[in-house]
Amino acid sequence: MSTPCLRYNESMGDPQQSFAYEQIAGEITRWIESGIFRPGDRLPSVRQLSQQKQVSITTVLTAYYLLEARGVIEARPRSGFYVRTALPAVLPEPEISAPSLDPAEVSVRDLVTMVLRDALNPRLVQLGVAYPNLALTATRKLNRIMSAIARELGEQSGVYALPAGCDALRVQIAQRMVAAGCNLTPADIIITSGCAEAITLCLRAVCRPGDIVAIESPICFDALQTLEVLGLQALEIPTHPREGISLDALRFAVEHTPVRACLVISNFNNPLGSCMPDAKKRELVALLAQHDIPLIENNIFGEIYFSGKRPTVAKAYDRKGLVMLCSSFSKDLSPGYRVGWTAPGRFAPAVEWLKYTSSLATATLPQLAIAQFLASGSYDHHLRHIRREYARNVAELSLAVTRYFPRGTRVTRPAGGFLLWVQLPEHVDSLELYRRALRAGTAITPGYIFSSPPASATATSSA
Amino acid sequence: MSTPCLRYNESMGDPQQSFAYEQIAGEITRWIESGIFRPGDRLPSVRQLSQQKQVSITTVLTAYYLLEARGVIEARPRSGFYVRTALPAVLPEPEISAPSLDPAEVSVRDLVTMVLRDALNPRLVQLGVAYPNLALTATRKLNRIMSAIARELGEQSGVYALPAGCDALRVQIAQRMVAAGCNLTPADIIITSGCAEAITLCLRAVCRPGDIVAIESPICFDALQTLEVLGLQALEIPTHPREGISLDALRFAVEHTPVRACLVISNFNNPLGSCMPDAKKRELVALLAQHDIPLIENNIFGEIYFSGKRPTVAKAYDRKGLVMLCSSFSKDLSPGYRVGWTAPGRFAPAVEWLKYTSSLATATLPQLAIAQFLASGSYDHHLRHIRREYARNVAELSLAVTRYFPRGTRVTRPAGGFLLWVQLPEHVDSLELYRRALRAGTAITPGYIFSSPPASATATSSA
Repeated sequence: MSTPCLRYNESMGDPQQSFAYEQIAGEITRWIESGIFRPGDRLPSVRQLSQQKQVSITTVLTAYYLLEARGVIEARPRSGFYVRTALPAVLPEPEISAPSLDPAEVSVRDLVTMVLRDALNPRLVQLGVAYPNLALTATRKLNRIMSAIARELGEQSGVYALPAGCDALRVQIAQRMVAAGCNLTPADIIITSGCAEAITLCLRAVCRPGDIVAIESPICFDALQTLEVLGLQALEIPTHPREGISLDALRFAVEHTPVRACLVISNFNNPLGSCMPDAKKRELVALLAQHDIPLIENNIFGEIYFSGKRPTVAKAYDRKGLVMLCSSFSKDLSPGYRVGWTAPGRFAPAVEWLKYTSSLATATLPQLAIAQFLASGSYDHHLRHIRREYARNVAELSLAVTRYFPRGTRVTRPAGGFLLWVQLPEHVDSLELYRRALRAGTAITPGYIFSSPPASATATSSA
Repeated sequence: MSTPCLRYNESMGDPQQSFAYEQIAGEITRWIESGIFRPGDRLPSVRQLSQQKQVSITTVLTAYYLLEARGVIEARPRSGFYVRTALPAVLPEPEISAPSLDPAEVSVRDLVTMVLRDALNPRLVQLGVAYPNLALTATRKLNRIMSAIARELGEQSGVYALPAGCDALRVQIAQRMVAAGCNLTPADIIITSGCAEAITLCLRAVCRPGDIVAIESPICFDALQTLEVLGLQALEIPTHPREGISLDALRFAVEHTPVRACLVISNFNNPLGSCMPDAKKRELVALLAQHDIPLIENNIFGEIYFSGKRPTVAKAYDRKGLVMLCSSFSKDLSPGYRVGWTAPGRFAPAVEWLKYTSSLATATLPQLAIAQFLASGSYDHHLRHIRREYARNVAELSLAVTRYFPRGTRVTRPAGGFLLWVQLPEHVDSLELYRRALRAGTAITPGYIFSSPPASATATSSA
């Protein structure tokens, strides 16, 4: 009870053993890639492999967990480890985007209205918009928690929350963001009605109508619409399908255009699923800081990573308070709760004031329910579950595209989130495809609406 | 079971009898005014009065109910009718405001921040801001309904609502607004995160930064702050403490200034409690229609009237789709639910698009709970209760002001809502009073922050 006791842990403490589980994982991967074990096959039991390779049970288990986190294999309760039924990475990735480098007025409202209407049609198979799979949300559990809090607090549960939000939730968010590399205090965080409100308030805090905002291309169409209604101009920057926004293109843009802000989805971008490597995030922050340009970072998919390690956020590298981190619980917990948040750095007073004057405060009970869910530890359990499920769903959809789509198709290999971006051969008109899919009872989203001038023929699917 | 049967109802059908209950009510009022019956005294029983005046029981009861609704008397269960312990209307009313007729940049942020901080301090007696008395909200009942809906719908309760809101709630609101003289369809209504968001979206739909908005003076400070952050200029129009905005002054303003929109709280204005007579509302709508100026009508206190009849809304007289009616359930049901709405006439598509791009949608479960509360009929029961309570509280606070405030004090006579506006003698500094009240454990709001240039010494209290 006096000195802290450091226990020996073979899979963490010893570099030789770390090497061992990586070796085992590598060997299993080669078995799968070479077709020795095929999708659906059961892998050797942990005990078998431990004896065969002369390593400990822990080493084998660690290798299996690593592969599971990477989406390569899956555990089935009381049965063992299996190769996932589908592996992505068969079709080539889409080409890096090449948008015009001139700022353009955004105007794709009619298309968006059409897509949104479809998205709420329960008779369609929904592959169109970034709505989460309801079976992978936690609404039922949150509802139970919310009911219990409501009973306990009675009329008190109906008071206005502070404009910045309930302290209990801000504390939980600050704690969680440590794992993403951030050092936030609860006072740095402002609760909003979903990530949409967070982005709008951040844009309003740093831009005036007519200003230019550098964005990824393609980018989720909601963001384009938000820029349009705020009277802002979108400057689309080429974006790599796996590594995110091109820093060379962005550097050129900020050096030659009066860019007022930059808006990116740093982890698992909608629609590409791109995830900026940590070193690139650091470089992005440094580049913008050099020009004193605020970075609005949307991290709404950040918790849904398929690999074993949470990616950091650009905010982690923010030294000047210029990064305005935005997120919500709409993709991983419950869309209808409408609870999002922002940590807008040095602009926090301005954003809080905008929140107060725009909608006073976010609803109280949903905030308290999510705070308690986070504090209970249920969130991590839930996230582990949905990461596995989304990884599998994305892999399966990817396999279906590989099997059934025409020669010349390209598809993204997202390492998180639940979106696939499919680039079809030149001759395919994605609008026509969208119409035909609708007639067949399936909603997709034509790629047109992910950039301001009509882009090349593309379509997305959500897994 | 065949022809509808019209039953004779003496208090409604017969003009002679209508006259009779008015006569009885008038006589009782004179008894009270002349001191024959004093606050706290029990009035003659219904049976006694019926025999004495040779009128029916119904006539006497109707007279008593009328006086009760006017806040003059109160019923005590199994005991009879009593003169209310306090009668308003002893001190003179505040003078009509005389703001500058030049548009002015709004900037009272520091004062507002201070007042908001106080408003959330549980150790202070809260007489400062327009937060409802928690004991007169319906959060507990709404919570029970919300829990039941959540159990029943399960994960489905977590879906995104439509940007315009849940149909069930829009239907209920449309039905209720019939009583206020409106002929709205559910499609005319957009659900928002409280009335604050409704006002912001409406202003954004019709104004651009730099535009001039005509407002009542004094006006609730939230509205001034909203104008400021949207870069709009407030043109303050003199406002009568009982009958609302001066139409002569407004006419002069719109004829000589490029007014882009007009914002009023038509029923029980915050802070004055003024209620525009119906004929005046009609005239206001006609005046603005003549100049094609949208009217943003805040009706957040409209259901909390002390007389027997619901006042209409200006929207009822709207023929050109220029009136943008805004309201919420924050004052009468539950502030923390953050459910408001707007019926913005011809601007509905623009407002709906702004809602979609600004916060996507309002939280689903709070909408469904309020819809069911309204559909069940509990809302009317609840409103009858809180109207009586607020009428009594306002009367009591008014009496206290009459008793304890210095000679020269003026006080409003609100016919609804729960606010009192107290105008102190010239030599009193309301900021100094605010500071002294704080030290004594009571939060009031200095009148300064209800107009853009410092106004005369005033302070409000909420009942």
